[in-house]
Amino acid sequence: MNSVNQDKLSSARFSEATNAFVEKFTASVMFDQRMAKQDIQGSIAHATMLCSANILTEHERDTIISGLTQIANEIDSGQFSWSIKQEDVHMNIEARLTELIGITGKKLHTGRSRNDQVATDIRLYLRDQIGMINSELRRLQVAIIDLAEQYADTIMPGFTHLQVAQPITFGHHLMAWYEMLKRDYQRLQDCSKRINIMPLGAAALAGTSYPIQRELTAQLLGFAQVSANSLDSVSDRDFAIEFTATASVIMMHLSRFSEELVLWTSAQFDFIELPDAFLHRLFYHAAKKNPDVPELVRGKTGRVTGHLVSLLMLMKSQPLAYNKDNQEDKEPLFDTVDTLLDCLRAYADMIPFIKPKQEKLYQAARQGFATATDLADYLVRKGMAFRDAHEHVGVAVKLGLSTQRDLSEISLAELQQICPMIDNDVYQSLSLEGSVSSRNHIGGTAPEQVRAAIQLARAEINQCAKTAR
Amino acid sequence: MNSVNQDKLSSARFSEATNAFVEKFTASVMFDQRMAKQDIQGSIAHATMLCSANILTEHERDTIISGLTQIANEIDSGQFSWSIKQEDVHMNIEARLTELIGITGKKLHTGRSRNDQVATDIRLYLRDQIGMINSELRRLQVAIIDLAEQYADTIMPGFTHLQVAQPITFGHHLMAWYEMLKRDYQRLQDCSKRINIMPLGAAALAGTSYPIQRELTAQLLGFAQVSANSLDSVSDRDFAIEFTATASVIMMHLSRFSEELVLWTSAQFDFIELPDAFLHRLFYHAAKKNPDVPELVRGKTGRVTGHLVSLLMLMKSQPLAYNKDNQEDKEPLFDTVDTLLDCLRAYADMIPFIKPKQEKLYQAARQGFATATDLADYLVRKGMAFRDAHEHVGVAVKLGLSTQRDLSEISLAELQQICPMIDNDVYQSLSLEGSVSSRNHIGGTAPEQVRAAIQLARAEINQCAKTAR
Amino acid sequence: MNSVNQDKLSSARFSEATNAFVEKFTASVMFDQRMAKQDIQGSIAHATMLCSANILTEHERDTIISGLTQIANEIDSGQFSWSIKQEDVHMNIEARLTELIGITGKKLHTGRSRNDQVATDIRLYLRDQIGMINSELRRLQVAIIDLAEQYADTIMPGFTHLQVAQPITFGHHLMAWYEMLKRDYQRLQDCSKRINIMPLGAAALAGTSYPIQRELTAQLLGFAQVSANSLDSVSDRDFAIEFTATASVIMMHLSRFSEELVLWTSAQFDFIELPDAFLHRLFYHAAKKNPDVPELVRGKTGRVTGHLVSLLMLMKSQPLAYNKDNQEDKEPLFDTVDTLLDCLRAYADMIPFIKPKQEKLYQAARQGFATATDLADYLVRKGMAFRDAHEHVGVAVKLGLSTQRDLSEISLAELQQICPMIDNDVYQSLSLEGSVSSRNHIGGTAPEQVRAAIQLARAEINQCAKTAR
Amino acid sequence: MNSVNQDKLSSARFSEATNAFVEKFTASVMFDQRMAKQDIQGSIAHATMLCSANILTEHERDTIISGLTQIANEIDSGQFSWSIKQEDVHMNIEARLTELIGITGKKLHTGRSRNDQVATDIRLYLRDQIGMINSELRRLQVAIIDLAEQYADTIMPGFTHLQVAQPITFGHHLMAWYEMLKRDYQRLQDCSKRINIMPLGAAALAGTSYPIQRELTAQLLGFAQVSANSLDSVSDRDFAIEFTATASVIMMHLSRFSEELVLWTSAQFDFIELPDAFLHRLFYHAAKKNPDVPELVRGKTGRVTGHLVSLLMLMKSQPLAYNKDNQEDKEPLFDTVDTLLDCLRAYADMIPFIKPKQEKLYQAARQGFATATDLADYLVRKGMAFRDAHEHVGVAVKLGLSTQRDLSEISLAELQQICPMIDNDVYQSLSLEGSVSSRNHIGGTAPEQVRAAIQLARAEINQCAKTAR
Repeated sequence: MNSVNQDKLSSARFSEATNAFVEKFTASVMFDQRMAKQDIQGSIAHATMLCSANILTEHERDTIISGLTQIANEIDSGQFSWSIKQEDVHMNIEARLTELIGITGKKLHTGRSRNDQVATDIRLYLRDQIGMINSELRRLQVAIIDLAEQYADTIMPGFTHLQVAQPITFGHHLMAWYEMLKRDYQRLQDCSKRINIMPLGAAALAGTSYPIQRELTAQLLGFAQVSANSLDSVSDRDFAIEFTATASVIMMHLSRFSEELVLWTSAQFDFIELPDAFLHRLFYHAAKKNPDVPELVRGKTGRVTGHLVSLLMLMKSQPLAYNKDNQEDKEPLFDTVDTLLDCLRAYADMIPFIKPKQEKLYQAARQGFATATDLADYLVRKGMAFRDAHEHVGVAVKLGLSTQRDLSEISLAELQQICPMIDNDVYQSLSLEGSVSSRNHIGGTAPEQVRAAIQLARAEINQCAKTAR
Repeated sequence: MNSVNQDKLSSARFSEATNAFVEKFTASVMFDQRMAKQDIQGSIAHATMLCSANILTEHERDTIISGLTQIANEIDSGQFSWSIKQEDVHMNIEARLTELIGITGKKLHTGRSRNDQVATDIRLYLRDQIGMINSELRRLQVAIIDLAEQYADTIMPGFTHLQVAQPITFGHHLMAWYEMLKRDYQRLQDCSKRINIMPLGAAALAGTSYPIQRELTAQLLGFAQVSANSLDSVSDRDFAIEFTATASVIMMHLSRFSEELVLWTSAQFDFIELPDAFLHRLFYHAAKKNPDVPELVRGKTGRVTGHLVSLLMLMKSQPLAYNKDNQEDKEPLFDTVDTLLDCLRAYADMIPFIKPKQEKLYQAARQGFATATDLADYLVRKGMAFRDAHEHVGVAVKLGLSTQRDLSEISLAELQQICPMIDNDVYQSLSLEGSVSSRNHIGGTAPEQVRAAIQLARAEINQCAKTAR
Repeated sequence: MNSVNQDKLSSARFSEATNAFVEKFTASVMFDQRMAKQDIQGSIAHATMLCSANILTEHERDTIISGLTQIANEIDSGQFSWSIKQEDVHMNIEARLTELIGITGKKLHTGRSRNDQVATDIRLYLRDQIGMINSELRRLQVAIIDLAEQYADTIMPGFTHLQVAQPITFGHHLMAWYEMLKRDYQRLQDCSKRINIMPLGAAALAGTSYPIQRELTAQLLGFAQVSANSLDSVSDRDFAIEFTATASVIMMHLSRFSEELVLWTSAQFDFIELPDAFLHRLFYHAAKKNPDVPELVRGKTGRVTGHLVSLLMLMKSQPLAYNKDNQEDKEPLFDTVDTLLDCLRAYADMIPFIKPKQEKLYQAARQGFATATDLADYLVRKGMAFRDAHEHVGVAVKLGLSTQRDLSEISLAELQQICPMIDNDVYQSLSLEGSVSSRNHIGGTAPEQVRAAIQLARAEINQCAKTAR
Repeated sequence: MNSVNQDKLSSARFSEATNAFVEKFTASVMFDQRMAKQDIQGSIAHATMLCSANILTEHERDTIISGLTQIANEIDSGQFSWSIKQEDVHMNIEARLTELIGITGKKLHTGRSRNDQVATDIRLYLRDQIGMINSELRRLQVAIIDLAEQYADTIMPGFTHLQVAQPITFGHHLMAWYEMLKRDYQRLQDCSKRINIMPLGAAALAGTSYPIQRELTAQLLGFAQVSANSLDSVSDRDFAIEFTATASVIMMHLSRFSEELVLWTSAQFDFIELPDAFLHRLFYHAAKKNPDVPELVRGKTGRVTGHLVSLLMLMKSQPLAYNKDNQEDKEPLFDTVDTLLDCLRAYADMIPFIKPKQEKLYQAARQGFATATDLADYLVRKGMAFRDAHEHVGVAVKLGLSTQRDLSEISLAELQQICPMIDNDVYQSLSLEGSVSSRNHIGGTAPEQVRAAIQLARAEINQCAKTAR
């Protein structure tokens, strides 16, 4: 592991000469080197196009490509020597290329500029990363579905205002999470359409006087389209903002799962067991199970929203076209990608091993008169007016409270005293099982519906996977 | 106009009893009454469905619908008396309905809850508003295209780092704005897909035991789908966040236009004339033209991003399902809608009347050696190595600087002294017209390309309009 | 109550002429009228100074003051007719003044501009509001201290990671909240120093050529200082950002109280009773106690942080001096003030009526082996090495877990089997009371320390109150 | 330079086992190692106190201190081997200490916990960093004052709405920047009061049963106070939020300077020369001077506000006391410190070398009828009513506009035709010099006042420096 002695750096920083300081202050290679692979990929496509457009000879093209390939290997094997003097990833690679193949290396830059080059690199990079994000997200969705299927009938309390409201099933609750992630996945796909457009060819800001063939380069790089305006191509970063906004929503969703997992792991709720790998246990204290991973994921929510704010503020009021400000787009974006990937991976690994404590869940649902609404509905179905029904339910609940019994534990005789209309069939409504299974419509918590939702979810995922192929 | 004596309110607030204070503090009717139309629309559809499902009789349905229609009229004509006692828009309308039609009014609430009702109302409301936003956005796009067409050949300086970089055309610059808005429009459409899903039927959180027909209600309300999970339906607000993020990007784009309009209106740039209606003039000072509207739009950017942060933070860590926190989703959303609509309208009204000062633009492009890159490209095309070409250009620029002449004003003899390879055809590259027209590829600034881009843009808009019909 | 038919407004908005729309779009009187009192106060002081500087005659001064006094009365009694045509609060009042007293009214504007006038008004307004905020904050602090004193000995579980960690007292927990608010109060005071500086006299941006006496005006208005640079005076809004940042921290603190109150009111924790006025109860469901007020306060946290972002983004990159953007500073600021005042009031009213359920708290502390650390400390005090002590504690905890007993319920014989070093005095450490009372140093949870902290807190508040007088 | 092959890391990440992944995911040593110096400093003080309290023997204390001193040296010289297995900076150092000095190393942890230890480290770290920030801020302030003094008489246009409004002096404009930084410095000092409080002794959350002497440790570490409540001590991070809010305001101010420097460097304004070291020049293009440093600083504004949002969102709704979420406080804080230090250093180095182009500034002030207000004031002083004065000025401005002359270039005869009241002394008001020198009151732009402001500023800085000693 690399030890950075920050303190030394700091004091060194302040004794160094202005020039050296500014060189470091304005350099970006410390963080943009992670786009090296995409930079080389883009350069190979550009060289290929330049040759096709008779701007480079075939020999020049081949020399460039072999030089770039060697550089890619040097980077991969950790032998490449990055230099702050060369400011950014592009200049570092270009300088090395010229070192390796001489003056021909300079020709690679014909008909392009760092402005369109960096815009292209980020899009390629983000496209790659979204691929990985998608697959972690899918893995998480499948984990949720699998768990939901296993516990499609497991009764638990449904909460509003953190108060027990109505009985639901554990599978139904889990499928709420699935739905959130389904929309998140769609958002990533929509965002990808706007990322997969090639800015290369915009040059500094106005295009180039060389007879470049942009569609060819786009095709070589797998871009769906070429960008339609050169000024816009080098200056806008709205795709990065859209991605970060999407990531913020995903993290917001994960923060909600996390909150519930933390609650459910507390001694007071005691609804689930989290797998040991995701807890922190004190070795002398077997009873304390700190839910470190959910807490950390919850804590990382603000981080991504912070990056979103940073990018929106970065772009605010910038006149066209490229300004140095834009160099600040990368770190928030990279950290968003890393954070999102890590959190999704953590959840995708963790969910399959969550164990609901079914007996505890059932008992928790029995408390709190969770079927009070069912009793009201029962009375209305028997023909009573809503308002009257509620009044009778109120009396029944108070009786239950004062005698410490759930509604389903009150005898028929007692219920009939409250309301003669009540019959023996009321217990179907008052039991947790009856309540749950009666909510039997699309989106309802009846186990039948939960299973249907699960089947549909599996079909959606498979359909998508086919389309993607 | 309504005068709110805030100060009095404030001191009143602090003398009132706790109960009255809490009643006001927790009420939402002050701001959610603006969804009254959608609330009634939803209720009519719900009543219609309840009747189809034999939960209401036809008579009950008709009585309810006629009561609701009367309420709609009362609201429209300003005669409806909103009451904080009735907490929110839903209860206000329900209370009035019961006043009007008696106990039947209560039956309207069968099989639904305020939780799914409010979620439905917001989606209906937002769908309506996005319709208006789309049409203002389109109007603005068309205004930009029209202006761009008019000035497709008008030469101006293209800037990077607010330094003159290369000549472009005014039309090309405008089309950069068009492109940004094109993506914004797409984003709104993508977002709409996720808005146009009906939560109604989720009831409090678990669904209902009544045999409701959700697809029918959805069809009556023009929703494309019904939501798939009841807990998710009442608790998530990601659609509102996505909309606000999209609005933030649009405002970010408008802030960039605004920054340029403010710059261009300054005495130092003096590139355009803004129409008088959008300026603030001091009556004694004909020379001072404060660009109030662009400044105000720029100033409103932070407002919308602020709302985005507020919504993301609102949802962070909320356990399922509905919590009272969610009441806080409306004000940021409503203000985002209003702000966006106003700013788009202001721009759509203003753009057609912007007058570029063509002579000033041309002269500004002539300064700053904007065709230095063209000279380098010229030399490279003549066979010179890149690095050498740049060195020769450097010498020419210095000569120009020291003798206060643009590159195109240096004589051939002088240029040939710098580099014998240079011929008379160099002036084609050094002239602004030559430079601009040489960037002749998709996305380039050549007037030919600008016109092609304009044609494409018109086609896109027409295509969309057809699809929408 | 005032019914705004938003929908009608909207469609009206889009049919109206550009000029009327822009007039409304750029006007601020809808929201800045709430500074009317301060505007008049500032004008009276300005007129008084102008007279002292021989710029106005005594008669002119008196006429102006009596006109302004009449306007103040008109506003107070709701008879003042605000007009959008007059753009803002200043112009509305000035126009009315001229209507009332003729041309002399215009003279009031000598030596000042709307730029320094509005900057003065906001500071006066904010100073007044902070006064009210301070007193609500104090009320809340006193409520917390009183409750803490009442329950200084009441044992409850202390949590880390929402897992029971060590026993503490309810009073100690409450005093953590007090400490947070203590810092918040200090921050408000520090912020006030920077608010209480008078910008009046900066005029449009450069000062004025009239021989104004700024110190006199400042003295009349109770400002501690006059601002030192005219450009800075009219352009910066950092005091508003600082205030909003302070408000964001207060709201963050209230969100943490709220989270705990919501948790503690749940059936699973069941630690406290919230007073009925701050709950929402379904009338048919006596068991469900939705903690509406804490939830709503928690939900309002993002709102204030959103305003902070909005203000920071507003000011970003604005060149000096005044720009129209700055008009956008008011709404976020006003809403921050209102939100903060309401939330503080709600809490100050609610806290005194919170009832901890002492038996439940005690039982919750008994679960979770909360005194495991105490056992380790006991062994170390007996001379055992830390690592060994932890190992022995681990064995004891496992024994407790497997036999469902707390550490204090394990017999001495059993404990001695685990570690012969253990003696009868161990139960002093293992009991909740012993554990709590042993943490007896400044800041510790021992009741003695809690009482000392309470006494200190009372002294601080009294000291402050004296100084303020 | 250290090459991180991110891509490889990424794919590696996803093939590794869950346990290894979680270990890395939850570790913080990668970033918290920068607090190593403070961690050791805190431990030495803690050991010293433990000895004074008879918890450690003198020998144990000395052994611990010498072990820690060796570790400090190992870290300083880059020989310390950080390990992710040891999770954080505290455990890494503790593990190494035990390696070096055996079981005594474990005793260091007596009476403290990682919860209060990390809270102490951050405060120590931040205190150190604020020291450095203060000194860079002071250096920048002094640079501004020096430059302002040099150009206290240099006339330039003052802008509102980016329109020329009134003449001011360059020195006056610079002193506006000084004023902003003056408040920023005060804010840092106020914030420091709340940072310089010692949490150590709070232990995990409740305090400790050891007879610790908190005041002694505080004294050894230079803390002004010990914290008053143990739960609050380990859980709150409001001091970090306050610092980041203060940093956001400083960055907002720097963004405003930057915007002006970028504008002023443009060919259109051409007001100043930025020193070469802070520009990016294309070597073949002597005319293009990209103001990279101001642009980058402007771009970094959003970054710090992003961190502020991230911290506020992190803390939102966290129940007491310590949760793992809090680990996320460090990276935003560290990056805020680094960014702020770098930007302040860049500005402090750059400002002294800025060269205003005095002739250009003067000419720019002459355009735009900057003395129109002065003419109005002149007429009012002669006894004319405000409204009439403005009308006459309007006529004069129009005459100037139509004949392309500044007001001061219009002949007396012509002026008298507009208004017979005008006399030869009017040119005193109409000249830029006369206008500027007439604004002669505290805060005004008269050179005399600017010099007084400069003198005051120097005195303030010297006063502070004395107090600090």
